[in-house]
Amino acid sequence: MSDLLADLAQIVGAGHVLTGAETAPWDSDWTGHYRGAPLAVVRPADRDEVAAVLRLAAAQGVAVVPVSGNTGLNGGALGAGAIALSLGRLNRLREIRADARIAVVEAGVIVDALNAAAAEQGLMFPLSFGASGSAMIGGVLSTNAGGANVLRYGNTRDLCLGVEVVLADGRVMDLMTALHKNNAGFDLRDLVIGAEGQLGIITAAVLKLHPLPATVVTAMVAMETLDPASGLLNALQDASGNAVVAFEFMPRSFVEGYLEIAPDSREPFDAPHPVNLLVELAAPQPGEGPGAALESVLAAAMEAGTVTDAVIAQNETQRRQMWARREAAAEISFRRNPVIDTDIAVPRDLVADYLRRIGPRLQARDPGCGLMSVAHLGDGNIHYTCYPTRDDPALMADLRAEIDALAMELNGTFSAEHGVGLSKLAPMARYKDPVALDVMRAIKAALDPQGILNPGKTLPPAGANRTGD
Amino acid sequence: MSDLLADLAQIVGAGHVLTGAETAPWDSDWTGHYRGAPLAVVRPADRDEVAAVLRLAAAQGVAVVPVSGNTGLNGGALGAGAIALSLGRLNRLREIRADARIAVVEAGVIVDALNAAAAEQGLMFPLSFGASGSAMIGGVLSTNAGGANVLRYGNTRDLCLGVEVVLADGRVMDLMTALHKNNAGFDLRDLVIGAEGQLGIITAAVLKLHPLPATVVTAMVAMETLDPASGLLNALQDASGNAVVAFEFMPRSFVEGYLEIAPDSREPFDAPHPVNLLVELAAPQPGEGPGAALESVLAAAMEAGTVTDAVIAQNETQRRQMWARREAAAEISFRRNPVIDTDIAVPRDLVADYLRRIGPRLQARDPGCGLMSVAHLGDGNIHYTCYPTRDDPALMADLRAEIDALAMELNGTFSAEHGVGLSKLAPMARYKDPVALDVMRAIKAALDPQGILNPGKTLPPAGANRTGD
Repeated sequence: MSDLLADLAQIVGAGHVLTGAETAPWDSDWTGHYRGAPLAVVRPADRDEVAAVLRLAAAQGVAVVPVSGNTGLNGGALGAGAIALSLGRLNRLREIRADARIAVVEAGVIVDALNAAAAEQGLMFPLSFGASGSAMIGGVLSTNAGGANVLRYGNTRDLCLGVEVVLADGRVMDLMTALHKNNAGFDLRDLVIGAEGQLGIITAAVLKLHPLPATVVTAMVAMETLDPASGLLNALQDASGNAVVAFEFMPRSFVEGYLEIAPDSREPFDAPHPVNLLVELAAPQPGEGPGAALESVLAAAMEAGTVTDAVIAQNETQRRQMWARREAAAEISFRRNPVIDTDIAVPRDLVADYLRRIGPRLQARDPGCGLMSVAHLGDGNIHYTCYPTRDDPALMADLRAEIDALAMELNGTFSAEHGVGLSKLAPMARYKDPVALDVMRAIKAALDPQGILNPGKTLPPAGANRTGD
Repeated sequence: MSDLLADLAQIVGAGHVLTGAETAPWDSDWTGHYRGAPLAVVRPADRDEVAAVLRLAAAQGVAVVPVSGNTGLNGGALGAGAIALSLGRLNRLREIRADARIAVVEAGVIVDALNAAAAEQGLMFPLSFGASGSAMIGGVLSTNAGGANVLRYGNTRDLCLGVEVVLADGRVMDLMTALHKNNAGFDLRDLVIGAEGQLGIITAAVLKLHPLPATVVTAMVAMETLDPASGLLNALQDASGNAVVAFEFMPRSFVEGYLEIAPDSREPFDAPHPVNLLVELAAPQPGEGPGAALESVLAAAMEAGTVTDAVIAQNETQRRQMWARREAAAEISFRRNPVIDTDIAVPRDLVADYLRRIGPRLQARDPGCGLMSVAHLGDGNIHYTCYPTRDDPALMADLRAEIDALAMELNGTFSAEHGVGLSKLAPMARYKDPVALDVMRAIKAALDPQGILNPGKTLPPAGANRTGD
């Protein structure tokens, strides 16, 4: 053990091997629900040091857990008992090529830092989520992060052209292309993206950038029921030529949660409404198009009675206020304990149905439990939050299972964008196609035969598959 | 052997096991360059029959080569000595869900047939390439087909949400989701797409559809050099809000090739020009936007002298004539023999540089060889054709290697969209990252340990990797 630490210090320098109390920032995840101290936190400076750490770990059969911003919500970066390999020092933004609209970045670059650099050239990396001030590219890629702009720009996988990966045995796999067409063998890039560090550690990437929009219009829209919302999105897309970049749903309970944590903030409307939508349209060119489309569609919807109130942001400050509410979702959800936070998706036109049916099912199991939700409605992606009346693990598991079960009944998924990590091993075993699980395990065994990369996450143990259909 | 044929007949019916002269349509690929008769052509009716054929093949250790439309250009579907498993009878278009903009199709559905059905609901599957009247979804997915509209809609991988795959041992892997966000384990869908039948046989898919554009403008644009073309594309994208769906380059030699095979066709312009671009813009909503953007950008470019002539299609007939020329590329390329047809890509702003430099390098090796090209310029994807002066395999290999080498020198790829198959095993060994090749082989071995799926294609043999960097 002390030999291992000495060998690690030999690779990264003694100042970059943290043990004991120094590891405190890495002893739990952001939610505080997953805890466990790593053997040591190791902070390599570059790809070659990452490779050397993995060669050492492979030789000694020691587990390695990659950690970047540690903003995940599923426990996937918890390094209990393992070498926690922090990518934070691989933070070079190697290149922005404005003409080609790409950025070449290392895994430890923070999303907001990339966006600040891109903005100087009129460009952006269009992932939008609350933790973007601390989340790093490595974690974003390893979880295939989503967020509020997937509707228009796709998820992380859609925004990545190339990756550099250190494998479990320390070999470096170089897939750092900037080409949009490159059919040369299996798609290993997309296999590694979203693999939660099971197949290798991503150390750098070639990312797509998009032009900063010249025109942005943002509004809060009130409805009395959610049912007409999917039709409103279609009308907005048709009227604007698919200019909708965000279409977010917040129920009244979410707005109240925000008022709790931000008591100085204002209500979105003069009167409270059960359905609050944050709608944003954007266009690369200057012009009245998105604003005119938004106003005409809202006017027609108010005439028809489906929309009951609407406020269009008149300046960037008002726009930021609208987004601040939405981006506080994680803080709002975790403001109480005990809490069950989830990340399910159903086909978009079934979101209203899901929300109507899930409450009574949870109340039947735990009368009096608190209920809240927030949704990337354009993607059918609901973060459903339940506050049980008591901190009972069996009850918590039951409530969580109920939330997943209804999603699956509606042809949805138990895991939309946060990934599996530790938190969704049970539904992976229960719902994922058993042949797909076996194929994942076969690939894991082929690329990491000792199982040293992020063990115990993502893949439920063999034998846990569901049987029959 | 006769036992095997009898067992196959037991599964699919005697009428669907073809042998001897009956296999003639499967004895060569479309180009005629790859030849070899399969042991038998087997035509299963559905997924379960595909699975039964694979169980039988696995038990007997017999090779299986999936074939759908047989329109590939790389020899990847040649079933010499193997069971050629034709997907042609899996041709049910199971469902089009217009609201969700998806189609659920079997692997044997022809691309044009899907588009005809989608058009009835105002939708389209936006892959555009010459062979779409015979190419089937299974082959399109297995090669991650591209074409002329990738610039706007992405390649096949970008257009697929879910797949159903029969593995080498006959197990069925069900990944048939229609969700846009679904982070539940490794991305096996994208691994199977573009894997050229090495990892399993795709039997069905959930595909994205897009609205048929309400506005389409198409033009032929003449330039004297290719250098300003990349800037013209940027100007068109900026002026139209990224409405460009196709940006295709044809040199004079291509236009002349078309006049050879279509002698009754008209010249694109009154006078011949060295650079002929086919430009198409489209918008989902009706309106003057794309047409006005095209006209204003072309007017400015003619004023600046970079564009020397332009013709805008006045009706669908004129538009079809413009596309008919471009879509004849494969026939034009293969109208002479011997021929070397390629599929390379370089960063878009280096296409002009590539074309300027490749000619002299080929002429130095084979003075008098014929040269032609056609390019999806918006993707940097060039189909470069060389007609050697003699049918000498060593010379042909040298010329092909020269075309690949310059692409690699310019940070490009030897394989943009046609895939590897048999035709690009040499550059795969020479240029592909050796660690990536080893990872591909490890995955292949894990999923197809006997190596019965499409053997000898896609992956060069172990030991053929390049050494050092």
